[in-house]
Amino acid sequence: MIILMARQADEQQIEAVVARIRAAGLTEHVSRGSERILIGAIGDERTISPEHFEQLPGVERAMRVLKEYRMIAQAAKPDSVQVRIRDQAFGGAALPLIAGPGTVESSDQMAQISSFARGAGCRLLHGGAFAPNVSPYRFQGMGAASLEIVRDAARTQGMSSIAELIDSRHLDSFLELDIDAFDIGGAALSNPELLKEVGRLNRPVVLRRPPTGTLSEWLLAAERIAAGGNHRIVFCESGVRSPGDARLTLDLGAIGALKQESYLPVIVDPTRAALKPTQLSALSCAAIAAGADGLVLRTHPDPHEALIDAEQSLSPSALQALVSQLQELAPVVGRALV
Amino acid sequence: MIILMARQADEQQIEAVVARIRAAGLTEHVSRGSERILIGAIGDERTISPEHFEQLPGVERAMRVLKEYRMIAQAAKPDSVQVRIRDQAFGGAALPLIAGPGTVESSDQMAQISSFARGAGCRLLHGGAFAPNVSPYRFQGMGAASLEIVRDAARTQGMSSIAELIDSRHLDSFLELDIDAFDIGGAALSNPELLKEVGRLNRPVVLRRPPTGTLSEWLLAAERIAAGGNHRIVFCESGVRSPGDARLTLDLGAIGALKQESYLPVIVDPTRAALKPTQLSALSCAAIAAGADGLVLRTHPDPHEALIDAEQSLSPSALQALVSQLQELAPVVGRALV
Amino acid sequence: MIILMARQADEQQIEAVVARIRAAGLTEHVSRGSERILIGAIGDERTISPEHFEQLPGVERAMRVLKEYRMIAQAAKPDSVQVRIRDQAFGGAALPLIAGPGTVESSDQMAQISSFARGAGCRLLHGGAFAPNVSPYRFQGMGAASLEIVRDAARTQGMSSIAELIDSRHLDSFLELDIDAFDIGGAALSNPELLKEVGRLNRPVVLRRPPTGTLSEWLLAAERIAAGGNHRIVFCESGVRSPGDARLTLDLGAIGALKQESYLPVIVDPTRAALKPTQLSALSCAAIAAGADGLVLRTHPDPHEALIDAEQSLSPSALQALVSQLQELAPVVGRALV
Amino acid sequence: MIILMARQADEQQIEAVVARIRAAGLTEHVSRGSERILIGAIGDERTISPEHFEQLPGVERAMRVLKEYRMIAQAAKPDSVQVRIRDQAFGGAALPLIAGPGTVESSDQMAQISSFARGAGCRLLHGGAFAPNVSPYRFQGMGAASLEIVRDAARTQGMSSIAELIDSRHLDSFLELDIDAFDIGGAALSNPELLKEVGRLNRPVVLRRPPTGTLSEWLLAAERIAAGGNHRIVFCESGVRSPGDARLTLDLGAIGALKQESYLPVIVDPTRAALKPTQLSALSCAAIAAGADGLVLRTHPDPHEALIDAEQSLSPSALQALVSQLQELAPVVGRALV
Repeated sequence: MIILMARQADEQQIEAVVARIRAAGLTEHVSRGSERILIGAIGDERTISPEHFEQLPGVERAMRVLKEYRMIAQAAKPDSVQVRIRDQAFGGAALPLIAGPGTVESSDQMAQISSFARGAGCRLLHGGAFAPNVSPYRFQGMGAASLEIVRDAARTQGMSSIAELIDSRHLDSFLELDIDAFDIGGAALSNPELLKEVGRLNRPVVLRRPPTGTLSEWLLAAERIAAGGNHRIVFCESGVRSPGDARLTLDLGAIGALKQESYLPVIVDPTRAALKPTQLSALSCAAIAAGADGLVLRTHPDPHEALIDAEQSLSPSALQALVSQLQELAPVVGRALV
Repeated sequence: MIILMARQADEQQIEAVVARIRAAGLTEHVSRGSERILIGAIGDERTISPEHFEQLPGVERAMRVLKEYRMIAQAAKPDSVQVRIRDQAFGGAALPLIAGPGTVESSDQMAQISSFARGAGCRLLHGGAFAPNVSPYRFQGMGAASLEIVRDAARTQGMSSIAELIDSRHLDSFLELDIDAFDIGGAALSNPELLKEVGRLNRPVVLRRPPTGTLSEWLLAAERIAAGGNHRIVFCESGVRSPGDARLTLDLGAIGALKQESYLPVIVDPTRAALKPTQLSALSCAAIAAGADGLVLRTHPDPHEALIDAEQSLSPSALQALVSQLQELAPVVGRALV
Repeated sequence: MIILMARQADEQQIEAVVARIRAAGLTEHVSRGSERILIGAIGDERTISPEHFEQLPGVERAMRVLKEYRMIAQAAKPDSVQVRIRDQAFGGAALPLIAGPGTVESSDQMAQISSFARGAGCRLLHGGAFAPNVSPYRFQGMGAASLEIVRDAARTQGMSSIAELIDSRHLDSFLELDIDAFDIGGAALSNPELLKEVGRLNRPVVLRRPPTGTLSEWLLAAERIAAGGNHRIVFCESGVRSPGDARLTLDLGAIGALKQESYLPVIVDPTRAALKPTQLSALSCAAIAAGADGLVLRTHPDPHEALIDAEQSLSPSALQALVSQLQELAPVVGRALV
Repeated sequence: MIILMARQADEQQIEAVVARIRAAGLTEHVSRGSERILIGAIGDERTISPEHFEQLPGVERAMRVLKEYRMIAQAAKPDSVQVRIRDQAFGGAALPLIAGPGTVESSDQMAQISSFARGAGCRLLHGGAFAPNVSPYRFQGMGAASLEIVRDAARTQGMSSIAELIDSRHLDSFLELDIDAFDIGGAALSNPELLKEVGRLNRPVVLRRPPTGTLSEWLLAAERIAAGGNHRIVFCESGVRSPGDARLTLDLGAIGALKQESYLPVIVDPTRAALKPTQLSALSCAAIAAGADGLVLRTHPDPHEALIDAEQSLSPSALQALVSQLQELAPVVGRALV
């Protein structure tokens, strides 16, 4: 940490800062410039906080120098950076596609989706189970009951299964039903107890953008999981709130910004940023062009009848057309569809 | 719902819209203006969604007319709108004050806080248990273990106890330990399963602003709880993310905006919007002047040593000074401290 | 406009609404549903405002039905939707590229840039003249003096010239020097007097995203120009403020959202959303994949020495490499580089 | 500036950083810690930029240590910090009130407003002239023609006059008509040329929050004016864009945050954050309680008929009632109405 002293700071104030640094088990380095005095706190600065110094008289500002994430940082990059969900690797040249509806409606619906999605080349099946931000009087999702449906539909087609984890009481069902990956956003992402628990499991996690949208909170949520031993994390950019608009803003610049900080793969779910299926296809292409390591594609056998995301779901033929386009596009950016 | 047809819509397209309205069990009302045709869908529109109509050819836009919250709406206002947490009523002329530290550090700390807070006139004790947005390497909060400490400190002083609920597995402890109110934000707020469960309990809820900051999502979260039968909800404005700034923006205009929609009381927690204890006091006064029905006040026996919110905690003397100022201020806006 | 009466509205209140509608020269249409009464105001609703009705007793809400932009709307689409800047057409199959530095530094710099940019296939030259958001003690841009430099460098290479308009007093210089297009954002975009004046000129406009980021304000700014007779407008998405981050968020979903509302072309300037030149290239590819009708590419002969956007400028070789990649990419989405 | 080297940085990379520091006329200070090497660039760091260092190999991050505003900083606080608009001082114990309509409609309207506003104790008259963010087909404001009307109405009542400056071509009219203060927001705020010119005049400026909402951009805009010699600046918090909402969010925490950085006074205009006149009054009280040095109050002889801000304007009786309430409130926070 670096502590910038105010222009008029005196020696006694400097000594108080030094004493506080030593009390925390770090050592100080006082640098007297022409305009200001800077004091470096050298050692493990995670045990101290800038606000403890900014309260001391004569201190203008205290700044952390080191980032607070370490395990997931670029500097900690392992030999292989690929994260596997069963037989699908994220972070290599191949681009796995995850398909699924906005919400699981029935086992028949999931059977249809898994069949045409697998036919189109998608190797992972995703099933939304909840609809947290809507009226309690509209369709709420099938909840935990959807887990078995997703698992069965995936198995029938030889696909991997991914499902949304929102409540810690569902953890057991995930393990018993052997769901291949957790989809963590919203509720679970803000629950540090649950993140810690997921960190102790050896099961991959699709970690969505936090609703407040800051990258540093996102990286720290990943670090919290990794700190428990589970480094099988895939970031998933899903958009941030737009000013004065119901549509989310898909932040494709986040792909590069995250990769600058962390070695973990980054996929994109453009659903909530699109107003029409054609926009969903356009944004899917854009995500791959921007360097995404995979996609989540909303699909429905009959989008007109979808209970959720009716205007943001690809029909079987639209999915097929998009996959064909992605097959052409991927090589332009040095990638390939699975 | 109102469906606005495109300028060039033909009779067949109008008929398709009408058919869809009837299929949902509603009746249509076609209004042919000089420029456009408007079709009203009359009946319980919660079973249909604008996007189901916007996909039909010839439709320009579909808009809901009725709000999706009902139980908590102004129109549903009961005879008494006060929400009680034990013996403290929110929403009347009196302004209850909730005091507590950023995080529970020990039972000794809580004994000190409850003692001086009660002395200063605060009748409710709050204890933060988690620190969700920080590095996993810094102090994490005492978690569920803090519940008993908060309860005991509150009882000793004859105060009500409020604690943060983030994980559904802690529900039982809340009930067993007889914590008087749930503080719900972040994780629990985004967990519809947990909101539903809280809705089935007869225990008051302090419901914080959702992290994305939209009022309609906040109102719907309250409606979800109320729909289960629990109408004992107090909104708590705690700030929204500022552009390019770590400090949150406290939206005091939300008090009036919420009260225009709902009869439920609204309190304010200015902690994260302040950079210094003096700003915390200033924003507390501002919240009361703006019409808040109570306050959450961060306090610590020795703010310099606080593990969290060190710069946003009031010392015992600062708390006492603020309460004195609030006592003078409240009558100006027709209120009184408890 | 549609006026929704409150549940308990009485006949006298309905009559007051009807009287107000008639006073504005419109006619009413009263629709009595099972739950609520809706009153339509039929005619040119631009002369009335929802707030004039929401103040009347018994009114719950008033909503505009028609959009406030007309000339630029999809419904007003002319036979040819292409906007030409000299010999370059935006909005057709071809994708013109605009190149230029973050700020004009000297005529020598612009001569180098125009030469290598033209060599790489860019047909339009852009020169930033101001740096509005930085310290007054850093380089401020050459201001109006840069206009002649841009014009001359463009002419030498047979390129079109585009320059930033921020102050109405510069309008004459633009016309005298025959700069081919105005680049309007920030100051000029918020100056309705200046937009009106630009609307009376027959000179194309590159209209950037407003800083507050809302699409409706952007569309209305375009309408304001078009209302004066100048329909030669190209939207340019340049990013919106990210929460807690200096980097802007590039909203590629805005391309589809704008095209749904307006027939005007949309280009993208990814500069401020990138942290490194490689990210600039990735986002440029993404923009084309998302359906952009052209790009603004920050370039500098020696990015390490650039006075502005040093980390967001493409070197000559990086520009050449990006153009080659775009040449491969464009056909995948049915487009071609010029 | 402080340059943090990457963990694996070698001596050659350190030397390159040192060379760059020296080339800029600064001196280096290399500090070798247990984990990292930090290099301080000592001297006037305004001539260098972090991005020039972050491009060099082996550099992890470069951070400015000193703020880029100096003249307006707390550290530069003059003996008297009051800013006068004619006979009204902002920044002392007294709280001047500025009154005026959303837009000047006629000289008759302004005569009425100035008369009842002066009667209620407001000593400054404000007249909005433009309506930048609305449809070009609605009332646009009287533009520059309103300046004379505001001036005359103010003089008749012995009030000071304040008017909105949006276009540099209106500067002469302000001076000729002797308008007492510039109201600068939106367009003028984003026009560095115009800010520089205002900086050379000895006429006070009411400087509104920039539309993107960041405090640092606001402080730098003030510094730009002050750098020209004009230190007569009053900050005016007017709200920032709310997520998913037309209402702005009034950031009263900005008062304390600005005062921590700068000695300049801060007033508040709550208009766009209120949905109803009662909310306008509540937020006005809140602003004073939060430490504001004055208020801008939207008023209209007959708010129901106001062409702009119909729901955010105080009637004569509402203004009178609010002023009475403020008279009681001000002493509680150690202030007094003028």
